[in-house]
Amino acid sequence: MICSSSLVMSSSPSPPASSEASDELTQPQVRKFKTSPQLNRWSRARSIRSGRKLDRSVELRTNSGSPVRGEEEFELPTSPKRGSGSGSESETEGNGGGKSIFMVSDGTGWTAEHAVNAALGQFDYCLVDRVCPVNTHLFSGIDDVEQLMEIIKQAAKEGAMVVYTLADPSMSESARQACKHWGVASTDVLGPITEAIGGHLGVSPSGLPRWAPGREKALSEEYFRRIEAIEFTIKQDDGALPRNLHLADIILTGVSRSGKTPLSIYLAQKGYKVANVPIVMNVDLPKTLFEVNPEKVFALTINPVVLQSIRRARAKTLSFNGEIKTNYCDMDYVKQDLEFAGKIFAQNPVWPVIEVTAKAIEETAVIVLRLYHDRKNRCSMPRISKRY
Amino acid sequence: MICSSSLVMSSSPSPPASSEASDELTQPQVRKFKTSPQLNRWSRARSIRSGRKLDRSVELRTNSGSPVRGEEEFELPTSPKRGSGSGSESETEGNGGGKSIFMVSDGTGWTAEHAVNAALGQFDYCLVDRVCPVNTHLFSGIDDVEQLMEIIKQAAKEGAMVVYTLADPSMSESARQACKHWGVASTDVLGPITEAIGGHLGVSPSGLPRWAPGREKALSEEYFRRIEAIEFTIKQDDGALPRNLHLADIILTGVSRSGKTPLSIYLAQKGYKVANVPIVMNVDLPKTLFEVNPEKVFALTINPVVLQSIRRARAKTLSFNGEIKTNYCDMDYVKQDLEFAGKIFAQNPVWPVIEVTAKAIEETAVIVLRLYHDRKNRCSMPRISKRY
Repeated sequence: MICSSSLVMSSSPSPPASSEASDELTQPQVRKFKTSPQLNRWSRARSIRSGRKLDRSVELRTNSGSPVRGEEEFELPTSPKRGSGSGSESETEGNGGGKSIFMVSDGTGWTAEHAVNAALGQFDYCLVDRVCPVNTHLFSGIDDVEQLMEIIKQAAKEGAMVVYTLADPSMSESARQACKHWGVASTDVLGPITEAIGGHLGVSPSGLPRWAPGREKALSEEYFRRIEAIEFTIKQDDGALPRNLHLADIILTGVSRSGKTPLSIYLAQKGYKVANVPIVMNVDLPKTLFEVNPEKVFALTINPVVLQSIRRARAKTLSFNGEIKTNYCDMDYVKQDLEFAGKIFAQNPVWPVIEVTAKAIEETAVIVLRLYHDRKNRCSMPRISKRY
Repeated sequence: MICSSSLVMSSSPSPPASSEASDELTQPQVRKFKTSPQLNRWSRARSIRSGRKLDRSVELRTNSGSPVRGEEEFELPTSPKRGSGSGSESETEGNGGGKSIFMVSDGTGWTAEHAVNAALGQFDYCLVDRVCPVNTHLFSGIDDVEQLMEIIKQAAKEGAMVVYTLADPSMSESARQACKHWGVASTDVLGPITEAIGGHLGVSPSGLPRWAPGREKALSEEYFRRIEAIEFTIKQDDGALPRNLHLADIILTGVSRSGKTPLSIYLAQKGYKVANVPIVMNVDLPKTLFEVNPEKVFALTINPVVLQSIRRARAKTLSFNGEIKTNYCDMDYVKQDLEFAGKIFAQNPVWPVIEVTAKAIEETAVIVLRLYHDRKNRCSMPRISKRY
């Protein structure tokens, strides 16, 4: 189990290991302490498991005005990395092998997760088959410094690195200092870009976590438009409601298993209303498809061998549900299907034909959107533009 | 129109503005030039519009071995920011007001977009109603240094800042140097985190753009699982196929317009198979809902006043489609609906009841997943863990 570990918590306030540490530790506490019901809940849960008395959490509450107090709650790991906890309350970690990355956010943490995921793409060669396995742990909604310190110390114990997105500058500064102090490798994902954008716009960042109460525009019109796009797209899946095709921003067409549905949903999440229309051999396409602006229709095509293998995998699921079509995976049928589609595409030369073989949804999405925006804006360089 | 601008291109190879510039410009060319069909296409398109002869693109091709040659194709903007182009081919920009952010990526660019979007969240107070408007422009698939230079120079012309994710270290170094040279504010989104992770894992990043040919695991098993999750989730939307509930990872339940569908789709994109089951007053819920593991059922609830306003907005769409229910938006009905749901929730105490009022889908998603993972892993601190 990845997360059977618990924190070392001292039952009596003890000074930091050295005076130097003490000096360095004044920095992470620039932010005033708030009483954290969640932290107290965690502490209580741990206390109950360890049989320790619950008076610490009470003390935390009464001392919430003192910036130094909270820090003393914790006992520092004795060595920066993989430091073993002292005292009977220490539980051994059980990481199941692999290096850990802690992602810490005062919001949802999805930005940190997205960035880590993208960066890990650079290590695929070593992650494949878990040759050098990595475990990520996302801690979201971390909005007080006590929780933050608790997590960073846990990172130090587990030899994890910390990736953080903390809107409050004093929180991110605390994270930076604490990581430095406890020898934890760390990266501030949003700090540098926020600072650069602030400089560019000539205004200061709000310092408020995303979705924080009081944040303007948290649930904006655009946000509701996105939800509407998702609902529209689901309703229009697989050729449903052809009378609504004129309401779509983007219409995808192609044979069965060319990836129309996941692509539709991906685009819908980005705020586009998408309809997808399957092409089935010798079945007439809805008349409305040829009545809408052809510039919003995108045709998908795929290599027949790859399509056959995808359909075979699909057929297993379908047969499981008793819906299998006998010739669905035959190479002859697959080729005829693609030829039938190809003829329709040729008759509609305005539709771009996008080759999806071996492409991820994200890749096909960017091709569609680049064309979509290019057709709308006639740019000198293909780009996807957005206003804020 | 945001993107009516074109690039200043000199029709004769001219040396950079100063010898200092020349020295600095040797650095961005550490990467060998490739002939870029796309760049040639763009150049040709521009040439045709400007009436210029097409011999430059030919020359580019024949000189592809020379690292200095390509750079000379461009005329430097005379001043670092908002430098006006010289020569008749210069077109004036038409940004329609607002500061521009160029996002440049050798992959899809979605990571850059996600990071910029999150960082812009810090400037909501100023973006709202376009008080200080921002336009973002995403340039994806930029995998040769010529295109890169062209974009950065355009950024210099437009006074835009540049945010980049370039896996190839020589490309990102070129971007950094060129931005510095042309006085363009810039941020490398993935470089620092990739470097930190590399250090943490003790291995080097591949330097290959995401989805590049030859990249292992580009379309991995996990990737196909995610697509399967999306397709499952669409099929299970709105209470469909209750016999499949046992196949879901997560089941959402709640009254109409409590946000089950967009939340389902958001979770599906993250790889979870989600089913959603609507609660309709005096209508029996599917028996299977009470037969599955109750730990995977999540109940959504919402403030009645907010629900009423969402339903009213919805009713407009529904009436448009001739599907309106007369009492759907009545406060009495809304309250009774919520009470009916509340009773069911009370009878199933294992289901966590999540308050979604004024929460974004992303926020609710993190609450659901935290609980989901916590129930599976019983962590000391709530976290969402993932293996790579």
